[in-house]
Amino acid sequence: MKQNNQHDKIKVAIVGGTGYTGVELIRLLSAHPHAEVVLLTSRSQKGTPVADIFPSLRGVTDLVYSDFDDTANSNSLAELTKCDVVYFATPHGVAMTQAQGLVDAGVKVIDLGADFRLQSLEAFEKWYKQPHVCPDLLKQAVYGMPEVNREALKSARVVGNPGCYPTTAILGLKPIIDAQNTSEQAIVNSHIVIDAKSGVSGAGRQAKLDLNYAETTDNFKAYGVTGHRHLPEIEQGVNELLASSVQHHIRFLPHLVPMIRGMFTTIHLTLTDFGKTQDLQAIYDKAYDDEPFIDVLPHGQLPDTRSVRASNRLRIAVYQDNERGEATSLVVHDNLVKGASGQAVQSMNVMFGFDEPCGLELVPVVP
Amino acid sequence: MKQNNQHDKIKVAIVGGTGYTGVELIRLLSAHPHAEVVLLTSRSQKGTPVADIFPSLRGVTDLVYSDFDDTANSNSLAELTKCDVVYFATPHGVAMTQAQGLVDAGVKVIDLGADFRLQSLEAFEKWYKQPHVCPDLLKQAVYGMPEVNREALKSARVVGNPGCYPTTAILGLKPIIDAQNTSEQAIVNSHIVIDAKSGVSGAGRQAKLDLNYAETTDNFKAYGVTGHRHLPEIEQGVNELLASSVQHHIRFLPHLVPMIRGMFTTIHLTLTDFGKTQDLQAIYDKAYDDEPFIDVLPHGQLPDTRSVRASNRLRIAVYQDNERGEATSLVVHDNLVKGASGQAVQSMNVMFGFDEPCGLELVPVVP
Amino acid sequence: MKQNNQHDKIKVAIVGGTGYTGVELIRLLSAHPHAEVVLLTSRSQKGTPVADIFPSLRGVTDLVYSDFDDTANSNSLAELTKCDVVYFATPHGVAMTQAQGLVDAGVKVIDLGADFRLQSLEAFEKWYKQPHVCPDLLKQAVYGMPEVNREALKSARVVGNPGCYPTTAILGLKPIIDAQNTSEQAIVNSHIVIDAKSGVSGAGRQAKLDLNYAETTDNFKAYGVTGHRHLPEIEQGVNELLASSVQHHIRFLPHLVPMIRGMFTTIHLTLTDFGKTQDLQAIYDKAYDDEPFIDVLPHGQLPDTRSVRASNRLRIAVYQDNERGEATSLVVHDNLVKGASGQAVQSMNVMFGFDEPCGLELVPVVP
Amino acid sequence: MKQNNQHDKIKVAIVGGTGYTGVELIRLLSAHPHAEVVLLTSRSQKGTPVADIFPSLRGVTDLVYSDFDDTANSNSLAELTKCDVVYFATPHGVAMTQAQGLVDAGVKVIDLGADFRLQSLEAFEKWYKQPHVCPDLLKQAVYGMPEVNREALKSARVVGNPGCYPTTAILGLKPIIDAQNTSEQAIVNSHIVIDAKSGVSGAGRQAKLDLNYAETTDNFKAYGVTGHRHLPEIEQGVNELLASSVQHHIRFLPHLVPMIRGMFTTIHLTLTDFGKTQDLQAIYDKAYDDEPFIDVLPHGQLPDTRSVRASNRLRIAVYQDNERGEATSLVVHDNLVKGASGQAVQSMNVMFGFDEPCGLELVPVVP
Repeated sequence: MKQNNQHDKIKVAIVGGTGYTGVELIRLLSAHPHAEVVLLTSRSQKGTPVADIFPSLRGVTDLVYSDFDDTANSNSLAELTKCDVVYFATPHGVAMTQAQGLVDAGVKVIDLGADFRLQSLEAFEKWYKQPHVCPDLLKQAVYGMPEVNREALKSARVVGNPGCYPTTAILGLKPIIDAQNTSEQAIVNSHIVIDAKSGVSGAGRQAKLDLNYAETTDNFKAYGVTGHRHLPEIEQGVNELLASSVQHHIRFLPHLVPMIRGMFTTIHLTLTDFGKTQDLQAIYDKAYDDEPFIDVLPHGQLPDTRSVRASNRLRIAVYQDNERGEATSLVVHDNLVKGASGQAVQSMNVMFGFDEPCGLELVPVVP
Repeated sequence: MKQNNQHDKIKVAIVGGTGYTGVELIRLLSAHPHAEVVLLTSRSQKGTPVADIFPSLRGVTDLVYSDFDDTANSNSLAELTKCDVVYFATPHGVAMTQAQGLVDAGVKVIDLGADFRLQSLEAFEKWYKQPHVCPDLLKQAVYGMPEVNREALKSARVVGNPGCYPTTAILGLKPIIDAQNTSEQAIVNSHIVIDAKSGVSGAGRQAKLDLNYAETTDNFKAYGVTGHRHLPEIEQGVNELLASSVQHHIRFLPHLVPMIRGMFTTIHLTLTDFGKTQDLQAIYDKAYDDEPFIDVLPHGQLPDTRSVRASNRLRIAVYQDNERGEATSLVVHDNLVKGASGQAVQSMNVMFGFDEPCGLELVPVVP
Repeated sequence: MKQNNQHDKIKVAIVGGTGYTGVELIRLLSAHPHAEVVLLTSRSQKGTPVADIFPSLRGVTDLVYSDFDDTANSNSLAELTKCDVVYFATPHGVAMTQAQGLVDAGVKVIDLGADFRLQSLEAFEKWYKQPHVCPDLLKQAVYGMPEVNREALKSARVVGNPGCYPTTAILGLKPIIDAQNTSEQAIVNSHIVIDAKSGVSGAGRQAKLDLNYAETTDNFKAYGVTGHRHLPEIEQGVNELLASSVQHHIRFLPHLVPMIRGMFTTIHLTLTDFGKTQDLQAIYDKAYDDEPFIDVLPHGQLPDTRSVRASNRLRIAVYQDNERGEATSLVVHDNLVKGASGQAVQSMNVMFGFDEPCGLELVPVVP
Repeated sequence: MKQNNQHDKIKVAIVGGTGYTGVELIRLLSAHPHAEVVLLTSRSQKGTPVADIFPSLRGVTDLVYSDFDDTANSNSLAELTKCDVVYFATPHGVAMTQAQGLVDAGVKVIDLGADFRLQSLEAFEKWYKQPHVCPDLLKQAVYGMPEVNREALKSARVVGNPGCYPTTAILGLKPIIDAQNTSEQAIVNSHIVIDAKSGVSGAGRQAKLDLNYAETTDNFKAYGVTGHRHLPEIEQGVNELLASSVQHHIRFLPHLVPMIRGMFTTIHLTLTDFGKTQDLQAIYDKAYDDEPFIDVLPHGQLPDTRSVRASNRLRIAVYQDNERGEATSLVVHDNLVKGASGQAVQSMNVMFGFDEPCGLELVPVVP
């Protein structure tokens, strides 16, 4: 299973390759026909083969972690500029220190962290408690959700890869918002409750007591009750990105599920009188008919997270009850694939003109 | 660990002792100072020692399953009438065939099934798809939630033990409803979203493909989207039992969590202008100050299901955000204890004048 | 993700496509460049699209279950004979009723059940409690383990795909047995303890109470203590297939682990004096140097099951302690891939002259 | 559920009350009729109520962590000497610094760490890589396994509470060793393979990456392959404590199971000719007939870990196959109860003359 070093492959670097999104990028890109990971960095693991940290990659890749020095004009930057695209699989605050240099060198940047997600500087600084170091670049950044921003991605130089929760929320609401925009009438009332549930891998590869197996298993809890950083991203997505004609008030509450991968987002809606005259199933079916990775389930069928495990699929069911004036959008994806690394590869495919499903045609692993 | 056959213990029978609520009753009652299980029935396991089916009970009890014949005037009924109280740990439709005979013989009945939960015959027949065979007895039945019905329980002859979800919903809303009734002003708007999550034991001890380990683990899903039998019970509890001065419209949606025990119910509320002037934390603290099994968490602390595992505790946190006009009540209990068998024992203690915590002072099992 | 109906693909049928090995074959073959599943049978699901039973396959395949009639001369057989190869993903006793007809029609047969594993009729009938209906064909059958039988597989017409436990046991011992055969001296004493642990998917997709989530999770147990059907297969593999110069006495004991996929087999050995002079690490390294799917871990590194999850890899570590006279071979694979469907595809690749890793170059899913 | 501060209760201190064995001691002792925890120490959590760290203890105890200073003549020691018994729920190396002072003050010491388990100074220093600071006290220390050392415990001043693995190994072999000693003939050959499996709580309450949920779940692995600290303790137990007439060579290999609590130890034995004439089931039945916490399963029944969950029970099955010359002892217990805190309380009961089951009559939690 040696990698085929084809000359026509683009060169990919991954900064921060010891986390779950980093290793998932390697898994996905190892099967990509037009891209090859040539550089992988980690401060803590400099000089170590990635397969020593992740034995699952033995026989898949011989990559060795390089050091990464984020001071300006460092060698690290010089190495990165030899690549066609650099993924930042890092916490927020890292990508923004390097992005300008890379863009100036003609390298595309895809940040899986949060530096280029929020367009509002004020919101960024409020929620991430630090100043943004390249506000001009932020203005050019494209929110990396192909189903919403496909055209803009084609020429994007910097991409803010969406958060896992916002991906489910925005794609779970898009057909309704679009239909409202078209009809110029509200289908759902403005108050929306997004009750979301995530597997533990969403918290990252960390040595933390509250992620210890014995603390997490056979347990369920809410977190971020007073406000989660994905809330402003969902608000931005729904109200601005989808150009909602109604300003929606969103209550977003995440929960932690004792499972490794998978996200389930339940979106509780109430129908307007106009909404009761609409066929939501038909609206959703039509909205995503041509999307390679969005699967709208037929009437009466409900999603579960395992049906998308380890794949880039996002599945949605929509339920409508005119008598009670209620509707529910139920969305699942794998938080590490469509919710992170898979969506980043999907954006890369758009940015470089590859077929959008390249490297992402993974069949979900069931059971 | 032989049971002490004290003469002053009441005699208890359990009909349907092979399910999870049955075995949980045995676990709880084996440590009860004033009650002793003397009869245990099961059609399928007649003649088998219960410890053969549940090896965890080896050394705890020598009880052997008796047959149970639910035809009228059967020997089974005669045996049951020798007891002081009969628990039905059976599916709906069983207890109502025996209850009248038992009550006539002066035996108290506690049904863990659904036969005596809904006061409305119409609602019962709509949701359970069968006629109720003892509507007169149903009128006398007391909904077995001591925190709401303590006085009525003291003289109850038939008790409908609450469903696991309704217990969390009703107790999670009670302080607000009571405060609304007292102040004659709405604190929360009428639309309430109850997004609930249950461990798998709630589905019972069944051989079903969709409960198979490999189908359930590392997976999360919703169910009952089009309507769950606990919805009318929650509506009855909130609107009638709590005598709500406002009629609340409730959206109830349950989900299945890959864990054995535990229930987490997230109640999404929006505040009225009056509500924003109220201190919900203080309201909850006061409401449950004297309750032996309800624990209101201090401001800022959130519950998790394991903190109540295998105990009769129900923990609640209430979150209030006046700026956004939102409030959330987060409720956990163990679905097999406070959500089923523990609550049933608690009601028995009230009915027989025992100290309410008798046999229920179990410390949660953590980790 | 429509399937590319290339003319040069071989036609594949799967009999019994509702179990875990069946759906895993579909997952693997959907990405195979030279094979296409054209027929899928199930008695219970006739007429149902496979994606209705396994929503994970929505968008992957449009296959619909055909009926399967195992009476002689049925239409089912006629349909199957249009294929190049037929996989039986069925319990034992099914493949042997159809195999002769298929072979006569020039169709290759790969049985994932047990009908063609044991060469000894007596052993088959003792352990599977039924007569073998095609003993002549059994004699020609090849045990489908490419690492042992690669040459024989090239011309095989009927393949008995190995059991999941025997795969780990035989491949975990092969380097030592081969080295003993070569040196004509025993390296390990004849008594071998194989203490094996399997994930729950090994028990199949069944509605059984003891596979219920709440019965299986947070639990560990042994089974088959008095004798498991994989014991004679392991004995055959070690003593006959590997032509062991010493007859090894094997104690095999399987256990059930609360995990979905994965098998861990611990092989406890004691060293002879000659054995203490040998370098087991070097023996294992050399033995598997050219094998595409066997990974011998470097000295000091230990395997875990997740490092092979959803892939066709089998990883081995060998530990040697000359002072205590002990050695241990520790083997992991994914019981549904290298332990079942993946190995079957690997054999098919050998049988049809495809590159052995075709369709099997899956990167393990971690986390 | 306020604690009843009875005057006749002994005063208990727990040093190191933030780990799993510490919190388990609190759970068990909160229901003990003759003991009360009056002091709880933790360096890191000084001043914090234990119920803030473990919300499961809200309403159970008002204890607040005290500081603990292990320098000689510190106030900590003075506080501890006011108690009747001090449990050390600490890593090895802590108890031995305090034990002499406590014993001198007439306080009994029970160490759940490893300081007083190994009688051999040499073995202690080899395996724990540090000198023992009170070798004289070590000589007086009693290995805290009531089934073996009940008489010695009655007058013990310092108790080394057994390790979780050694408890299963020693009690799983004791009936055979005793029978060998009595008959002066070997029943089993000297080479014994102990293949053990533990839930994750055995690794303690730690923030470690390899204990992270996403690293541990759906995974199985071996550890300590080159030698585990419980090996010398098992060797001591079998060969010295049980005064084995044959010196047994023990191969001990532990594995990590994705479950919270529970230990399953498989002991692989081969029978001598004399052994084949013996009835092992009868030997085990008789050996443990009077033991309150040891349950020998009837012939043909196998243990699983959940049947002892959260209880002090240890269950054993013994399997004998004279034809193959094999025997297997299969042992389960809850590693935090009989494997740690429960056994420590059981020893305390013996030391203070309480009924041995006091505070330990917990029914296992199933499901």
